[in-house]
Amino acid sequence: MGRPVYLDCDTGIDDSMAIAYLMAHPGVDLVGVGTVFGNIDAHRAARNTLDLLALGGHDHVPVAVGAEKLLAGAWPGGAAHVHGDNGIGGVDLPHCGREPVSSAADLLIRLAHEHEGDLRVLAIGPLTNLARAVDREPALPSLVESVVVMGGAAKSPGNVTPVAEANIFNDPQAAARVLDAGWPLTLVPLDLTLENTLEESDRAVLLGAAQPVPRAVGAMLDVYFSFYTGTYGRRCAALHDPLAAAIAAGGVTPTLAPAVQIVVDETDGPGRGQTICDLRGERVGYPAQPTARNRLVLEISAPFAPHLMEVLTSR
Amino acid sequence: MGRPVYLDCDTGIDDSMAIAYLMAHPGVDLVGVGTVFGNIDAHRAARNTLDLLALGGHDHVPVAVGAEKLLAGAWPGGAAHVHGDNGIGGVDLPHCGREPVSSAADLLIRLAHEHEGDLRVLAIGPLTNLARAVDREPALPSLVESVVVMGGAAKSPGNVTPVAEANIFNDPQAAARVLDAGWPLTLVPLDLTLENTLEESDRAVLLGAAQPVPRAVGAMLDVYFSFYTGTYGRRCAALHDPLAAAIAAGGVTPTLAPAVQIVVDETDGPGRGQTICDLRGERVGYPAQPTARNRLVLEISAPFAPHLMEVLTSR
Repeated sequence: MGRPVYLDCDTGIDDSMAIAYLMAHPGVDLVGVGTVFGNIDAHRAARNTLDLLALGGHDHVPVAVGAEKLLAGAWPGGAAHVHGDNGIGGVDLPHCGREPVSSAADLLIRLAHEHEGDLRVLAIGPLTNLARAVDREPALPSLVESVVVMGGAAKSPGNVTPVAEANIFNDPQAAARVLDAGWPLTLVPLDLTLENTLEESDRAVLLGAAQPVPRAVGAMLDVYFSFYTGTYGRRCAALHDPLAAAIAAGGVTPTLAPAVQIVVDETDGPGRGQTICDLRGERVGYPAQPTARNRLVLEISAPFAPHLMEVLTSR
Repeated sequence: MGRPVYLDCDTGIDDSMAIAYLMAHPGVDLVGVGTVFGNIDAHRAARNTLDLLALGGHDHVPVAVGAEKLLAGAWPGGAAHVHGDNGIGGVDLPHCGREPVSSAADLLIRLAHEHEGDLRVLAIGPLTNLARAVDREPALPSLVESVVVMGGAAKSPGNVTPVAEANIFNDPQAAARVLDAGWPLTLVPLDLTLENTLEESDRAVLLGAAQPVPRAVGAMLDVYFSFYTGTYGRRCAALHDPLAAAIAAGGVTPTLAPAVQIVVDETDGPGRGQTICDLRGERVGYPAQPTARNRLVLEISAPFAPHLMEVLTSR
């Protein structure tokens, strides 16, 4: 049996890839999923999640709807230009009968107690649910085994503003709360995820797979590949969420992940939503920073796409 | 006869290297120097400048004291831990008889009119004098040939905060004013200057030079090299100001200097003083940004130190 994982997501095309990875990876026991606004609204994210889980034979996994807006602010409106109008590239998944429960924060707290000391928390959307959960259960940081967050940018350009990544930008206050909560947290930033891409040749393999989940993911990626033409100059896609999933699952090993001070810019200025990472020690091996709580993944041992493809098409 | 250059500086050890370079480069006619608070107070910066110019036989160059504090704020207090108590590494230059005039902004405006269309402005300290000059003479941006600024950080860590470089951090409001002034401005950021270092072997050559200016610079560098041990893990120094001087003089040619949107963070948040550069087009050759006014130098054609050493020891 795999390690228990709680996933918090805004499903989302790359979220769908992460879910597909988590369903297929033998080291993972996906014990619950919470959804949050972000790529799409939280309810649609739950619908997408339920239907994808059903398609992968994981219709036992509880799915809970979480935050529909920022801790302090309205829903910013999603990213249809990236993920399509329904969040999953216009693909119509078979509608499963299940409905989500409420709320994501409560589900996370319950699972943290049930799997005390063992639960791995993986957050690949805005961090609003996690922030709410910490507010409701201050002991939460000491109950979980680890937290992996896809989010932020250290030296990489942002993907919403010149310096801000979408998950953090979408709720900077929540991100600050989560990064300061004191749990063992690993941030997987754009610096790493933009360096790892899936190509058209990979998508062709997914579309031709025997199993329905990789076929559905391959279909979703059509829209996503088109969006990323502006970033890379070719049809391909960055592997944001699945890379964070693989790190949480232990399928990918960080080889450079210094503990550095990370401060979220919560101002309304031009840096809003930036994860300000103190990399001033980069030329001398990142000396210990006494107040640094969180690890920042900057390198992994091998390109991610081959491993991702192997897992997605394995069962 | 060289091209007319107005230098604005906070002399400073690397400012001294820049002044030495400008005095020695045959393509430069140094027609005036203004000083500003920064590495040291503006009056001490003027004293250092006058004495170094005299040592190099340039005692005809007018030196004007400029801003002693930010456009809006008190003098932050200098950087004695980097540049020594007197700004030039504790070196006692022979005291020349000349005194500075006032003010730097007025000198710049006068020189811009005198050399209309030809003046190259080189700023290697906080941008307060330039901002004041633009306020006093709104036509200034159309009178000068070009502006080169040592300042900011795009992807590089900062040197005052995790994201802010000292010259910009020391007066973000002035920096914003200067970056938005509409003149042909080239920013030389830490990304480039931290990649170019002077080593102990170079310093030994300076100390053994026949001329007094390189010998004085070699002596100043003792303190500077000690400071940079924390950055590089060895005694050496980044070549911030002399590299900007060489670009202004035409001695070094930028090979990658895209015009990109650059916004200064003027908030009081954790990003204060950051130059937020829009590098989201970095993977597709930096497509034109219609509102981008300023160039950001990211690469030069060859390592800088050999050229710098050649010029400094040439006469």
